[in-house]
Amino acid sequence: MHDRSARPLDPTSDAAIAASVTPRPIEDVAADLGIPADALYRYGPHKGKISLDFVAEAESRPRGQLVLVTAINPTPAGEGKTTTTIGLGDALSQLGTSTAVCLREPSLGPVFGAKGGATGGGRAQIIPMQDINLHFTGDLHAITAAHNLLSALIDNHIHWGNALDLDARRISWRRVMDLNDRALRQITVGLGGPANGYPREDGFDITVASEVMAILCLADSLSDLEARLSRMVIGQTRGRRMVRAEELGGIGAMVALLKDAFQPNLVQTLEGTPALVHGGPFANIAHGCNSVMATRTALGLADVVVTEAGFGADLGAEKFLDIKCRQAGLVPSAAVVVATVRALKMHGGVPLKELGTPDAAAVTLGCGNLKRHVENLKKFGLPVVVALNHFTGDTPEELEAVRAALAAEGVDVFPCGHWARGGEGALDLARAVLDLLARRPKFEYLYPSELPLRDKIETIAREIYRAERVDFSSAATAKLKEYELAGFGDLPVCMAKTQYSFSADPTARNAPTGHTLPIREVRLSAGAGFVVALAGDIMTMPGLPSAPAAQDIFVMPDGFIAGLS
Amino acid sequence: MHDRSARPLDPTSDAAIAASVTPRPIEDVAADLGIPADALYRYGPHKGKISLDFVAEAESRPRGQLVLVTAINPTPAGEGKTTTTIGLGDALSQLGTSTAVCLREPSLGPVFGAKGGATGGGRAQIIPMQDINLHFTGDLHAITAAHNLLSALIDNHIHWGNALDLDARRISWRRVMDLNDRALRQITVGLGGPANGYPREDGFDITVASEVMAILCLADSLSDLEARLSRMVIGQTRGRRMVRAEELGGIGAMVALLKDAFQPNLVQTLEGTPALVHGGPFANIAHGCNSVMATRTALGLADVVVTEAGFGADLGAEKFLDIKCRQAGLVPSAAVVVATVRALKMHGGVPLKELGTPDAAAVTLGCGNLKRHVENLKKFGLPVVVALNHFTGDTPEELEAVRAALAAEGVDVFPCGHWARGGEGALDLARAVLDLLARRPKFEYLYPSELPLRDKIETIAREIYRAERVDFSSAATAKLKEYELAGFGDLPVCMAKTQYSFSADPTARNAPTGHTLPIREVRLSAGAGFVVALAGDIMTMPGLPSAPAAQDIFVMPDGFIAGLS
Repeated sequence: MHDRSARPLDPTSDAAIAASVTPRPIEDVAADLGIPADALYRYGPHKGKISLDFVAEAESRPRGQLVLVTAINPTPAGEGKTTTTIGLGDALSQLGTSTAVCLREPSLGPVFGAKGGATGGGRAQIIPMQDINLHFTGDLHAITAAHNLLSALIDNHIHWGNALDLDARRISWRRVMDLNDRALRQITVGLGGPANGYPREDGFDITVASEVMAILCLADSLSDLEARLSRMVIGQTRGRRMVRAEELGGIGAMVALLKDAFQPNLVQTLEGTPALVHGGPFANIAHGCNSVMATRTALGLADVVVTEAGFGADLGAEKFLDIKCRQAGLVPSAAVVVATVRALKMHGGVPLKELGTPDAAAVTLGCGNLKRHVENLKKFGLPVVVALNHFTGDTPEELEAVRAALAAEGVDVFPCGHWARGGEGALDLARAVLDLLARRPKFEYLYPSELPLRDKIETIAREIYRAERVDFSSAATAKLKEYELAGFGDLPVCMAKTQYSFSADPTARNAPTGHTLPIREVRLSAGAGFVVALAGDIMTMPGLPSAPAAQDIFVMPDGFIAGLS
Repeated sequence: MHDRSARPLDPTSDAAIAASVTPRPIEDVAADLGIPADALYRYGPHKGKISLDFVAEAESRPRGQLVLVTAINPTPAGEGKTTTTIGLGDALSQLGTSTAVCLREPSLGPVFGAKGGATGGGRAQIIPMQDINLHFTGDLHAITAAHNLLSALIDNHIHWGNALDLDARRISWRRVMDLNDRALRQITVGLGGPANGYPREDGFDITVASEVMAILCLADSLSDLEARLSRMVIGQTRGRRMVRAEELGGIGAMVALLKDAFQPNLVQTLEGTPALVHGGPFANIAHGCNSVMATRTALGLADVVVTEAGFGADLGAEKFLDIKCRQAGLVPSAAVVVATVRALKMHGGVPLKELGTPDAAAVTLGCGNLKRHVENLKKFGLPVVVALNHFTGDTPEELEAVRAALAAEGVDVFPCGHWARGGEGALDLARAVLDLLARRPKFEYLYPSELPLRDKIETIAREIYRAERVDFSSAATAKLKEYELAGFGDLPVCMAKTQYSFSADPTARNAPTGHTLPIREVRLSAGAGFVVALAGDIMTMPGLPSAPAAQDIFVMPDGFIAGLS
């Protein structure tokens, strides 16, 4: 049993700050967006789902402008993309702009592992943070159940005679669990004799890596959801024919499991700004953005919608723009690139433990990373500002170094204090964003859909990663040809690369040049609608650290859950 | 894609009947029981959870009488225990009695497999049946997550140095999933090299077989929940010391995951009678009853509480009385034994396909099964009535045969028509139950807690199963001694036996005598608080049939889910 007396609640913790605010009733938050009571399915007093009928109505009259929050390549120093999204939303609300933020929903894996939850921090949080970080409205559980139902149907089909002639050695559909559990990465199933089916190799991914999650986030109607699930390729026959999920006969049951999860969730920020928190696909083997349903709904209900994409802009923003916006027909109006002096110092070569020492020269050097992301975003025709998340130790000289470096690009830099002060700390940033929105940018994708798959990969590598060449394995080359022949050539590509560098080498910080991008493997996500190109080993089931966060979480006698962050 | 035009909704289906009724707002149902709005956490308009504070308040003033609905040994002909529980509840409500029904919540395994949901049928259903049969309020997902978090912590502990010296060959804590998936029964995990941990044998049970589920259903407070989870034994060290779950250090996080699931769920019957639907442990390796929290809450809020136990009375009622009532200090007041003419005919030797032929003699013979269950229940001091679920083909002679057979026991038989007519069809039964409740029965357990474990098993085998002898394997004998020495001798025993017969032979219908009960294995559920005695092979992960129900479930354009039953 936990000795609770020995663990008083830290009043500066995210959980304590969140608990210090009395949330508005969720129907009031909904009313701000014009969502009537009968279109809101309530989960207690502070969470709700928006009915699909109302979503369709809202989508039919888009009025809002879309702002993407993205970041430099992440470092151990931290950047604060989610807090900036929330803080900018609150600042816009303070300025009287009708605003909604659109965020991804957390997975239990990082909550119990090392990273923590995904509800922001300090005075820039979404609430109720305990609920959102644990089961929320059950979306991830629904995805887990739907995914694993298909897995069970596959093995059941083989067990009962294998009429489809599935090749048990070539089943690409794995199982999923919403936890970090390395022991499940590679397993054998069906052991123990005839009653337990045919033994075969298998494994579990974390739920957010499921194609079902990517589909839930890209589908734009219940029938599109069903069509995409039906199209998923789960493996091959012994004759090497691709087998689609619909051939197993359980798609209707999967849709039944996902019907509620498909409705966007509505919560609020600490300052009461509406937040649509819905979906959260992996940002490497999937596209890493919240759901199209939520984004479109928000654009029908608010004047400005602030959203974020996973990882740095090289991966996250590129996928947001070339996959999500392309599939959903969304036209973003501006981008905010988040950085910190500390992280720029790391890109400038300073080790983690020396970040406390002022070093404006290293900041200037590290701005190479930031500037390249800014340049890249301009290639999409997007106007850009930089949000510099303020830390106590930042010196005026260091801040000036960032300003000066970006001035050369014609981009403004705004130090932000939303973590400590909420929306008030991001008012300058908000005013700058409103200025950008007054422009009429001409947004364009990086590549046209009809470009061959190989050329799409090369375009991203050249234009975004600044690689000198792309090295395709022979297996990848063969598969890309196979996909083109099978009619998948028009799909966008989803790059699975380390998030820590523009290159495939996670240790190559700042703005590396002359590197080669190795494409070792490609995979088809036929339901989600993209071809995944893997540049390196990509982990789809994380492990727990030696001292997992789960060991510090406990329920206090009054029901308060301590230890979440 | 489903060709929906080819699948019109059958208006006599359970789903269609359920959809034809407009549910009362859940706060009105709550108000019937005196539950104030601020004690109800709503999940949409028709489901709610009751706050733990209010549960404590309700429990502190018990006023109701508890009626157990149990049954003969099940046959493929079906009995209708859940519909009788619901129909009796509705009939009592019609008679002006303040009534609540307490039921178990469904698992997705049978919903997508062969058995279907667990919300009753015909005019005797609980609603919203689609929600309840799918995710409901997420309780089973929470149990799955909490269970598997502990699994992940176990393998993580071994991976990071195994300070506890856990013996990877002797880890009894398996993983769980809320689906029927035979391929997961026996697996190997941790394959693929050092990054994935140490390989070992493992397997998945269905979530309802998790000890966490049994604990959720037996704990009477959040602190008791935590204490029981802490006590669970997850395996042994290489020195054969039993290792408790708390030694892994994640109990607080498990409680955090279970905090909401621990609150009783409130829904209603088709006629608006309050129904607390909460928890649903396996009825073989666990005790098969709804939660103590729900039952106690109902007893504090209604004059009569109708509940059911799993399987036939030999397993279900015995465990309800000797495990649940003993642990929770509940005193039941009457028992209803459910039978059908068709099922009694099968116990009388008639094969399934000949059940349409009238055969009063076979019914008389088959009443041997029913009479023995009635005799057994009297051993607990409980007054008993028989509910005979009416089928169209039943003849007056067959009904008379049941009446005559039970008259010899001094027990009345009431033909019931609640499936076709709702509460109105069970009014006679309800009046009879009210008569029984006016008596003052002297309830007693079958055996005292201090009886040695072996003697407890022999008492159940002799008094309930009417076995001639019990055959303990040497392993079982040794383990029972080990448990006694370790201080677990006072726990009740939980028999895991086929539900189809009084004996361990599932084909021995009716009232077998002279049989031997083989106890092959015993297991300790130290957190749930019982010792499981296994008489035969007990399946803890079902498989899907060759044509699973999942293949007939689909979502209609208006959101209605067809194919659930």
